[in-house]
Amino acid sequence: MYVILVYDVDQSRTSKMLKKCREYLYWVQNSVFEGEITRADLEMLKMELEEIMDVDEDSVIIYSLRSTKYSSKEILGVEKGGRELII
Amino acid sequence: MYVILVYDVDQSRTSKMLKKCREYLYWVQNSVFEGEITRADLEMLKMELEEIMDVDEDSVIIYSLRSTKYSSKEILGVEKGGRELII
Repeated sequence: MYVILVYDVDQSRTSKMLKKCREYLYWVQNSVFEGEITRADLEMLKMELEEIMDVDEDSVIIYSLRSTKYSSKEILGVEKGGRELII
Repeated sequence: MYVILVYDVDQSRTSKMLKKCREYLYWVQNSVFEGEITRADLEMLKMELEEIMDVDEDSVIIYSLRSTKYSSKEILGVEKGGRELII
């Protein structure tokens, strides 16, 4: 499946979150990641993020798209991510 | 259609961007918005955001979902947005 992941965590945990998300997904913008991921890898990523996060303070939202056939992506301004991924 | 909008702009423009996005969408997390929007309103929002942004420096990504039938949303940690919108 294809996921869009966004996080909002305390600055002290940003670099760890960034590093962890990059192991599984592509960075597209400040605290936003995307990518094709298996269900098993997504479960692993979620567990690993929950170990880094303070679950009483931080927030992660994961949008899962079963198919990218019904979605599109548009960028205004500059593209910040390292890899172009038009879904 | 349903959109997920994320922005990454210079701090000097954050409050204007926030205010403008809130006119059309729901705030769900730091610089992340969601909502059902018409194509015409989305075009209007994009024009208005481009007036606020520095298009050589700032970035906005808009994911448009034709249908929310093929997507799901999951939150880890706390929910920051003001309104629950499970898509």
